[in-house]
Parts: sequence; C-alpha cells; structure tokens
Amino acid sequence: MRDFEEIKVFIDKEIQKICFPDSPNLLYDPINYIIALKAKRMRPVLVLLAHQLFNKEINNAIYPAIAIEIFHNFTLLHDDIMDNAPLRRGEPTVHEKWDKNTAILAGDTMLIHAYKMISKVDNSVLKNVLDVFSQAAKEVCEGQQKDMEFEGDYTVTLKEYMKMIENKTAVLLAASLKIGGITAGASLESQDHLYEFGKNIGIAFQLKDDLLDTFGTSKKFGKKVGGDIIANKKTFLYLKTLQLADTKDCQKLKLYYQDNFSAHDKVENVKLIFEKYQVSKHTTDMMKAYYTKAIKHLDAIESNNKEPLIYFANKLMYRDS
Amino acid sequence: MRDFEEIKVFIDKEIQKICFPDSPNLLYDPINYIIALKAKRMRPVLVLLAHQLFNKEINNAIYPAIAIEIFHNFTLLHDDIMDNAPLRRGEPTVHEKWDKNTAILAGDTMLIHAYKMISKVDNSVLKNVLDVFSQAAKEVCEGQQKDMEFEGDYTVTLKEYMKMIENKTAVLLAASLKIGGITAGASLESQDHLYEFGKNIGIAFQLKDDLLDTFGTSKKFGKKVGGDIIANKKTFLYLKTLQLADTKDCQKLKLYYQDNFSAHDKVENVKLIFEKYQVSKHTTDMMKAYYTKAIKHLDAIESNNKEPLIYFANKLMYRDS
Repeated sequence: MRDFEEIKVFIDKEIQKICFPDSPNLLYDPINYIIALKAKRMRPVLVLLAHQLFNKEINNAIYPAIAIEIFHNFTLLHDDIMDNAPLRRGEPTVHEKWDKNTAILAGDTMLIHAYKMISKVDNSVLKNVLDVFSQAAKEVCEGQQKDMEFEGDYTVTLKEYMKMIENKTAVLLAASLKIGGITAGASLESQDHLYEFGKNIGIAFQLKDDLLDTFGTSKKFGKKVGGDIIANKKTFLYLKTLQLADTKDCQKLKLYYQDNFSAHDKVENVKLIFEKYQVSKHTTDMMKAYYTKAIKHLDAIESNNKEPLIYFANKLMYRDS
Repeated sequence: MRDFEEIKVFIDKEIQKICFPDSPNLLYDPINYIIALKAKRMRPVLVLLAHQLFNKEINNAIYPAIAIEIFHNFTLLHDDIMDNAPLRRGEPTVHEKWDKNTAILAGDTMLIHAYKMISKVDNSVLKNVLDVFSQAAKEVCEGQQKDMEFEGDYTVTLKEYMKMIENKTAVLLAASLKIGGITAGASLESQDHLYEFGKNIGIAFQLKDDLLDTFGTSKKFGKKVGGDIIANKKTFLYLKTLQLADTKDCQKLKLYYQDNFSAHDKVENVKLIFEKYQVSKHTTDMMKAYYTKAIKHLDAIESNNKEPLIYFANKLMYRDS
C-alpha cells in the first residue's frame, strides 16, 4: 500500500506524462500551461487511494484519475473566464495570457480529452465509470450556474448555499472516490460509502475554504485574505451570521455587501460582525459535523488500507492554506 | 427500410422528447432554446441511415444519433460566442439572448449531456462508439481553432483550408455514419467505407456552402449572400482564385480582403474576379470529385438499403439553400 505522499508523487509524474498533440499549438499550448501549474491533485489522489482500499494494483485507476484532474482543470479554466479572474494558482489565467476565445476552445478540448481518458479504463467497468463521471460533471455545471446566480441575489438561503457547494465542489470529490472503488471492484455498498465519504469531506473542505478566506493568514493562504468579503460572496460565514444576528446587525452586514466601502474598512467591519456572533466557531462546528459523517462512511468500509484516506481527511480539516 | 424523409420525421420527434432537468432554469432554458430551433438534423439522420444499411431495428442507434446532434449544437453555441454571431438559424444566438457566461456554461453542459447519451448505447459497442465520437469531437475543436487562426492570416494555403474544413465539418458527418455502422454491427471494412463516404461528402457539402454564400440567391440561401466576402473569409473560392489569377488580379483580390470598402462594392468586385477565373466551375468540379469519391466508398458497402444515402448525397450536391 502506498501512502498519501507516495500517491501524490506518483500522480505528479503521471500528469507530467500526459501528451497532447503539438498542433494546433494555439489550442494545445494553453492546455499544457494550465495542466502544468503546481496543484494539490486532490481528485486523482483520491481515485487511487479509494482504489487501493480494495486492490493494490492501481494501473486500472490511473486513466480515470487523470481524466478527473483534466476535467477539474477544464472547470477552472471556464470558471475563470466567467469570473473574469486574472490569476489562477498565482499565475495569469488562460484568458488573460491568451484570450477568451482561446480559453473557451481549450476548455472544450480538455473536456473531450477527459472523456478520452475515461474510455481507456477496463471495458468491464467503462459504462459504470462513465456514468458516475458524467453525472458529477453535470452537477458541477449546475453548481457553477447557481454560484453565478447567487452573485446578484440577496435572498440566497444557507440551505441553497449548502446545495450549491455540494454540487460545485463536493460531488467531484465524491465521484473520484467512487470511481476508484469501481475500478478496484468494490461492492455497490462500498461504492456508496466512498461517495458519501467524499461528499461530506468535500463540503467540510469548502467550509474550511470559506473560513480561511476570511480568517486565514494571507502568507499561508496564498490568496488575498478577505477576498470573499470584498467580492460580496455569500459564503457560509455570511449566511450563518444572517441567521444568528439581530435585525440591526443583519441590516449592517447587508449594507456592507451592497454599498461601496473601501476594501480595508469593509473587511474589518464585516469581520467584527462575524466575530460578534462567533461565526468562526459555528463554521468549525459544522465542518466537524460533516467530517464526522464522512468518517462514519469510511468506517463502514471493510479494508485494511484506510490510513491514507484518514490522513487526507485530517489534512483537509487542519490545514491553514 | 425507412426513407430519408421518414427518418427525418422520426429524428425530429425524438429530439422533441429530449428531457433536460427543469432547474437551474437559467442553465437549461438556453439549451432547450437552441435544441428546439428548426434544423436539418443531418448528423442524426446519417447515423440512422448508416445503421439501417445493416440492421432494420434502429433502436440501438437512437441515443448516439441524439448525442451527435446535441454535440453539434454545442459547437454552434460556442462557435457563435467566438465569432460574435448575432443570429443562428435566423434567431438570436444564446449569448445575445442571455449572455456569454450563460452560453459558455450551457455549451459545457450540452457536451456532457452528449456523452450521457452516448453512454446509453449497447454495452457491447460502447467503447467503440465513444472513441469514434471523442476523436471526431477533438478534431472539430482543432478545425475551429484553425478557422479562427485563418482570420488574421493571409498566408493560408488551399491545402490548409481543405484540412480545416475536413476537421471542422466533414469528420463529424463521417463519425455519424461510422457510428451508425458500429451500432448495426457492420464489419470494420464497412465502417471505414462509411467514414470515408461521410468525410468526402462532408467536404463537398462545405464547398457547396462556400459557393452558395457567394453565388446563391439570398431568398433561398437564408443567409446574406456575400457574407463570406464581407467577413474576409478565406474560402475555397478565394484561395482557388489566388492560385489561378495573374499577379495583378491576386493583388487586387488581396486588397479587397484587407482594406475598407463598402460591402456592396466589395462583394461585386470580388465576384467579378472570381467569375473571370471561372472559380464557380472549379468549385463545382472539386465538389463533384469529392462526391464521386464518396459514392465509390458507398458502392463498396454490401447492402440493399443504400438509396436513402444516395438521395441524401444528391440533396446536398444539388441544393440551393
């Protein structure tokens, strides 16, 4: 059994080996560029970790693992166009470095390439892997749509937000784990537990992201702290505070999210309201609840190789970047 | 055996039955909108016509047929963003009626949905259908990339143009026919003949399009005649004329394609140069050569049900819109 770090090194090497055609270079250069950016590679690592719960021979899981990473990068590429984002992983986004049309078409080609990788999986599990992958891909798009709609919508509820992050972030982690189970020949029951483990850990992961964006230290987090507040993002922190706060503070918070304030003042004042209602603790509690639920699903799986997945779950929970 | 028109009616009904989710409606409304626009449905018709060369029971071919039509509409949707096109099939394009972000995400979702439809094909042919579909999809993207690059490129050769239209237009017709063969259990040899028939007829189809754009009658053609000239498109007509014309006329033609002239003057003068070198006849001859090559591949297939495909090929060749 390989541990988490070994699998990460293995995946990094496999990703370096991905071979796109040379021509047309204006189509493939941006794809090689985004794929080569340094990244956590969480999803392909999860595919392989799930696979080796049941089967030490991981070859059959590599192609879908790579497929999911390419798909994930495709979503980043297109999301960055939609969000007009200048940077991705600290480097210029594809639509900035090239242009929007190039980024649209490069993304499309990546999505197709992801399916080409899926198709290389063993024929006996192809339909199953394909369906899990497509279902997750569809839900990711639905999540992105909702995320965009929430931008101009001040009636978003916490429940709607939780559903959005489940689609946009958690289902792909869930599908990665389930696909690893499928390629390893896991039982349907184990596949379902893997999916639920991934979904719950994925939601916890996003809550942690929300928390770090406002209460992280900029140096470690790698993004500008307070970015969500500046962008008026209705995160868990914002929506939970609206549930907890008195009418006056609710109005104040909403005002900060709709009017023009200097970034510094806005971040500081919003944080004060968040702190008044201990929303940081509420978020951590919620994260822990999802974490506990996730671990229960992992517990229900029979395998001697669960340590790397537990290590992964803890890493997500206790990270500071 | 159903004839061409029966298959068309059948496909129209099947497309009306496609069921996308209701929510998020801002994601699925644009998809339902573009799918519902009146269209020729050439590609799904070809899947079924190819299938019934070998097998009268067409059920196994319906899902991939629909998949290819959804894929085709996805390419139109994203191409229209890239080309900044205001109209598609006489109606406002999705990015005009909604906005660019909506159009990007709706397109992505359609591409995923196309794969969901592919996955419903009989398991025994799934990998094969999937691979032919993905390969064509990839080549369509490469063709679109080249088409965009040609816009600002005045060194494009006729050979490069032919390769571009092969990728952008012909390979999807080719793949449609091959996939119909696969679902019907045709031999590998017949599958290849179907592919080559489709590729050659597809190139002839595009040459006819080039011809109609300049020499068609606006009323029947449905688009503005001369549109390619106004947009400085390096079509077969333009590139062939550059091969045939003397230095003076070449310079004149290039000038019309780079300087600002009134649309009417430009179209009339470019047409005069085209006519001087009988480029209309040259295009028709080239079309016929591809048509003949296509029919040879159809001839090589053993089947008693070829009439609808011959009817289709002739319809393409002798259409005036």
